[in-house]
Amino acid sequence: MNYDQSALDLHKQYAGKITTTLRDTSELTKEKLSCYYTPGVAAVSRAIADNPSLLPVYTWTNNLVAVISDGSAVLGLGNIGPKGSMPVMEGKALLFKHFAGIDSVPITLDVHTPDEIVATIKAMASSFGAINLEDIAAPQCFEIEERLKAELDIPVFHDDQHGTAVVTLAGLINAMKVTNKKLADCKIVIVGAGAAGTAITKLLHLYAKPQIVAVDSKGIIGSARTDLNDAKKLLLDYIDTTASGSLEDALTDADIFVGVSQPGLLTPELVAKMANNPVVFALANPTPEIMPDIAKQAGVAIIATGRSDFPNQVNNAIAFPGIFRGALDNKVQKITDQHKIAAAETIASLVDTPDAEHIIPSVFEERLVPAIAKVIL
Amino acid sequence: MNYDQSALDLHKQYAGKITTTLRDTSELTKEKLSCYYTPGVAAVSRAIADNPSLLPVYTWTNNLVAVISDGSAVLGLGNIGPKGSMPVMEGKALLFKHFAGIDSVPITLDVHTPDEIVATIKAMASSFGAINLEDIAAPQCFEIEERLKAELDIPVFHDDQHGTAVVTLAGLINAMKVTNKKLADCKIVIVGAGAAGTAITKLLHLYAKPQIVAVDSKGIIGSARTDLNDAKKLLLDYIDTTASGSLEDALTDADIFVGVSQPGLLTPELVAKMANNPVVFALANPTPEIMPDIAKQAGVAIIATGRSDFPNQVNNAIAFPGIFRGALDNKVQKITDQHKIAAAETIASLVDTPDAEHIIPSVFEERLVPAIAKVIL
Repeated sequence: MNYDQSALDLHKQYAGKITTTLRDTSELTKEKLSCYYTPGVAAVSRAIADNPSLLPVYTWTNNLVAVISDGSAVLGLGNIGPKGSMPVMEGKALLFKHFAGIDSVPITLDVHTPDEIVATIKAMASSFGAINLEDIAAPQCFEIEERLKAELDIPVFHDDQHGTAVVTLAGLINAMKVTNKKLADCKIVIVGAGAAGTAITKLLHLYAKPQIVAVDSKGIIGSARTDLNDAKKLLLDYIDTTASGSLEDALTDADIFVGVSQPGLLTPELVAKMANNPVVFALANPTPEIMPDIAKQAGVAIIATGRSDFPNQVNNAIAFPGIFRGALDNKVQKITDQHKIAAAETIASLVDTPDAEHIIPSVFEERLVPAIAKVIL
Repeated sequence: MNYDQSALDLHKQYAGKITTTLRDTSELTKEKLSCYYTPGVAAVSRAIADNPSLLPVYTWTNNLVAVISDGSAVLGLGNIGPKGSMPVMEGKALLFKHFAGIDSVPITLDVHTPDEIVATIKAMASSFGAINLEDIAAPQCFEIEERLKAELDIPVFHDDQHGTAVVTLAGLINAMKVTNKKLADCKIVIVGAGAAGTAITKLLHLYAKPQIVAVDSKGIIGSARTDLNDAKKLLLDYIDTTASGSLEDALTDADIFVGVSQPGLLTPELVAKMANNPVVFALANPTPEIMPDIAKQAGVAIIATGRSDFPNQVNNAIAFPGIFRGALDNKVQKITDQHKIAAAETIASLVDTPDAEHIIPSVFEERLVPAIAKVIL
């Protein structure tokens, strides 16, 4: 189904998706105005100036996430700039509110180098309780996130990397139950070495140390490659560096394919090279690396995509609302790898009886946010 | 009355003052989610990327003002930094919503040079429909506002300067009716050459070209002074540059005193030097340059202060909600001097029968916002 026209219509009808309102909805009397603004507010400002840790006690920052992008790698659209990316960021703010009750402000940046983006976000960071980086192109996204995590005392989480990685791990945990395999014993092929592919690689390595073969547009990534940028070189710590060759070479006897790459990349012929009962996560959006019906015909045991109109949707919205809810509620300053694994295990556990069509809970599963929030400690 | 404890209690009880909600309050179905987020939102992003002027059609920027401060000159508190200033900025957001239905996001910056502040605001400006600068110290505030106005295509308005100037002019227009004088014929003494004093001086000069004598902590500002910084030198175009001497010299035969300076500065002895039926705007906050009862005893005809517990409150909140409401509704890219004068005249006109206790409408006057918005064209 094509949602383009309904999306344009709905956005126009409501003139956007979020709005601000007052927390205190009782009448704003003259006396209250003297408390919320001058002269009373001065006492609140003085209290925070004297003890900055009171900021979340007295201001909305306690429940506030900034969704920040430079619009350089938006959905399947690529570099569409700050204004073009605003509807996606505002959509993220809608999800934060709807699923987790979190206040959220979309901020799109018209600067694009790591130095500029880090400087801008650092300058305004004291306005927020946490920062969700979004749709920033690789490899800059890695440096930006690392520097901000090191320099800020609030959580910084690049959702394209870690949200995708958490939900992918959750799905694979249940896929292993269904196919009766162990992740640690699997050969996993990850195609696409951008933000999501890199984060998935790292998280799967940390979780189970399986054999991972990473593939980019030039073939298998390994020690033999002389054309790797710094970000891809860092991948060598997590993958089978002895591998080389084509995607077909990579897929031979592979148990799991994880694609964050291009529509149609995975043909039935390539599936035929894989091990028995192969698991395919075809996450290219909106058109996956292989369509579910073709995958099934080719012998795939379990297929997951990024789409809501097929079973097993790998959707970041399953993870990030609960992760930020937990970080804010539990005053977590950094979201760690252990948090991500705990979130993935929690998500997997909410599928009561996993089968080939049900390895990932729905984004509408009401237990998700509270259950995830509880393990972000 | 001291509001400190009630202010602290209220802020703590509600954990801040504003929150975000969804514009579309009907059920968020799976289909709607596919419009507001992936995959449908991509069509909206593409439309804006192709035609950036559609940003306010499809996103909340159409009704959104950023309230931005570096916390360097907050209320009477001075430089209390970004976190300390957040309650005031969030209070501003509350006023925007309550009085004008405008969505507003408080952003506090941890950078303080004009170059850094301009760079940070420019980087994120495409996220907003307008920018309200707030509580930034003089003289940096002048350069910051000028550069942003020149470089951005959305309204930029430093409220400490222009909001105060607009309401002061409105009050003086009515004060002239009550005292039966003409502003053009008056000798006006303006004490305090910071953000507000400078803006008041410029706006009064533009409106009526009265004789203005400006006074700072070192005495009368004039051509003879060799210690003026660049910002104060610019004032020389608007004031009586031949004047020199002390505050007492300045006040001799003055019709109007406008103080944005220090508590208690204006003594009864100084008032006695002024012309008949003197008008005093004692705007130092929270303690005015002279208390109303003392001013009256000393022969002042009309006294205005910044306080809500006395008559004639000069409160920016009378002006800025309507000015921004008009700028957003009428798609005004720059708020000009003519807009400020039109706003001041409109505010003055809403006092049906001005008298000594009623020269400025209440901030709760319901006609204010629509009437002002109508003249910001």
